[in-house]
Amino acid sequence: MKREIFVGKVGIGGDHPVSIQSMTNTDAGDVEGTLRQIRRLKAAGCDIVRVAVPRKAALAPFQRIVARSALPVIADIHFDAALALGALEKGAHGVRINPGNIGGSEKLKAVIRLAAQKKAPIRIGVNAGSLEKKYRRPGLERAEAMVASLLDRVKFFEDQGFFDLKLSLKSHDVAETVAANRLADRSCAYPLHLGVTEAGSYFAGAIRSAVGIGSLLLAGIGNTIRVSLTADPVREIRVARQILASVGLGRGGIDVVSCPTCARTSVDLIPLVEEFERKARRLRFPGRLRVALMGCEVNGPGEARDADVGVAFSRQRAFLFRKGKIVARVGAKEAIPRLLDLIRELATEADRA
Amino acid sequence: MKREIFVGKVGIGGDHPVSIQSMTNTDAGDVEGTLRQIRRLKAAGCDIVRVAVPRKAALAPFQRIVARSALPVIADIHFDAALALGALEKGAHGVRINPGNIGGSEKLKAVIRLAAQKKAPIRIGVNAGSLEKKYRRPGLERAEAMVASLLDRVKFFEDQGFFDLKLSLKSHDVAETVAANRLADRSCAYPLHLGVTEAGSYFAGAIRSAVGIGSLLLAGIGNTIRVSLTADPVREIRVARQILASVGLGRGGIDVVSCPTCARTSVDLIPLVEEFERKARRLRFPGRLRVALMGCEVNGPGEARDADVGVAFSRQRAFLFRKGKIVARVGAKEAIPRLLDLIRELATEADRA
Repeated sequence: MKREIFVGKVGIGGDHPVSIQSMTNTDAGDVEGTLRQIRRLKAAGCDIVRVAVPRKAALAPFQRIVARSALPVIADIHFDAALALGALEKGAHGVRINPGNIGGSEKLKAVIRLAAQKKAPIRIGVNAGSLEKKYRRPGLERAEAMVASLLDRVKFFEDQGFFDLKLSLKSHDVAETVAANRLADRSCAYPLHLGVTEAGSYFAGAIRSAVGIGSLLLAGIGNTIRVSLTADPVREIRVARQILASVGLGRGGIDVVSCPTCARTSVDLIPLVEEFERKARRLRFPGRLRVALMGCEVNGPGEARDADVGVAFSRQRAFLFRKGKIVARVGAKEAIPRLLDLIRELATEADRA
Repeated sequence: MKREIFVGKVGIGGDHPVSIQSMTNTDAGDVEGTLRQIRRLKAAGCDIVRVAVPRKAALAPFQRIVARSALPVIADIHFDAALALGALEKGAHGVRINPGNIGGSEKLKAVIRLAAQKKAPIRIGVNAGSLEKKYRRPGLERAEAMVASLLDRVKFFEDQGFFDLKLSLKSHDVAETVAANRLADRSCAYPLHLGVTEAGSYFAGAIRSAVGIGSLLLAGIGNTIRVSLTADPVREIRVARQILASVGLGRGGIDVVSCPTCARTSVDLIPLVEEFERKARRLRFPGRLRVALMGCEVNGPGEARDADVGVAFSRQRAFLFRKGKIVARVGAKEAIPRLLDLIRELATEADRA
């Protein structure tokens, strides 16, 4: 499991589902246009948006964008620590910087200090194309060199006592992207941001991203993803969602219905629902499944007749039901694991259908 | 390395590049329409085509299709051994059967005997959806069960002395497809035909296939692929090619130019060109690279000025050149490996550019 960070209210790493990112391509000064694009991205299923802050004049509009954005905003900064400091002051929920081009270690330390103060995570990454010369050694695979470079950068942050990092390793070579991320996954516990650079046209980019990001997700690697396309960013979200669905991490496959809890509720239902939802995120289910979690036996199976499957708690016991009929009685503590097993069985049945 | 089989002239397994398959969706009796579709598939980059033979009446048109097809033709047979026998008699370059539904072991043996006689390989496979009951055991992952079922089927063929097999393990669950093929790859040396079943709409199917097939190819698994889409089969080829390109197995990244050989030629150039082409197929190269292989030093670097890189042989020695300039002198036997190294270096440079 990876360290948990938060970009605004969106958790990355830990038990959090893989989140989807994109980046606006509107003009840095166009507040309304950018906000409109962010709303479209959110409606499409985007969780976090990145907005470039290319110059000082962009800081004022950036502040207005962050203040009204429908999604947490990460400032994308290059070459100028003052822009990173400015974006953090203006409310950025995170920053993405290239520690190698920010203007030296003192300026980098200032950015780290302010990010820590603002509780904003920092994404640092290595792109194969801009790998520093000193890491290009004969006999060293470039994927290894990328990770070596990244870990040196990470150490600098750790030495400042800063750990709210998110890492990225990108190459336009899909195999290299996969190799570098596999190595990084084994090498440290920071959440990984997956993407393939210069992924190209919509079609080529979608396929290249699906291969690269999909392979890593299938291996259980990756905490947040961005599909880069030379296309409307909303299309990036569509591809990202389809990649997640392909590896069984799609959204909304399992709908949870739970009772509002009342005096009859014999268990602390809310943490049970949370536990279930957290664990169910990693479950694959073809199509949709409605799952009911009921706090007592009275309205359990009956009230949740529409649910495909569910559990009704009754003091120390729980009833598992399916299509309104009780199929098992178990101890309350076993209820969630047994329900998850039942869902896995149903998924297998649905596969066969 | 996997056992080498041939479907017509197309080699699968061994050193052969990953081939692309598709399946016609024209009416079984529509000879001209089917041939037209096969020509379109070939033009798009398809290597092998599958044609269903659903009933006895389809055998006569099938024969005319095979006789005039631009691509080797595999007969897709279900439920009736007589159709498999008929298709083999009519010239099928291979057959795809489901040993479990062909009408019993004696009929299966007859098909195997005739396929051996006709030197036609057989593809057998297991689809998660039709896994026989006896392999569905609690505690056994379905991917393992699929492989267990397949290996039992393989044994039946081996017991008849038949080894020209191609295997497939498909599921509509991408993770399961990948898991089953990884296990099969470790379990036997028959070439693997990769695909994701019921991959769905063009968009969803392309992404699902890219994740599943792409992951396996990145792991060095898979000898021939089919992208299944609910779409014009030509679109399957487009997606297949893009998947191959994404994992560095794209076609035409490296163009080989070689001299026609003459009296000055001091080496047996043709097998060297073949060796180079065979090995270069597994090389990744971003964009296009023109490689010249010249039989003597006279017209070597000079004549191949347009080539990005090349080698000119001179008796026991060889000159490696780049953009018309000699960059190394090596023994003739080292020439191809050194040329491949040089191309790998150029690929790395091109990546950085």
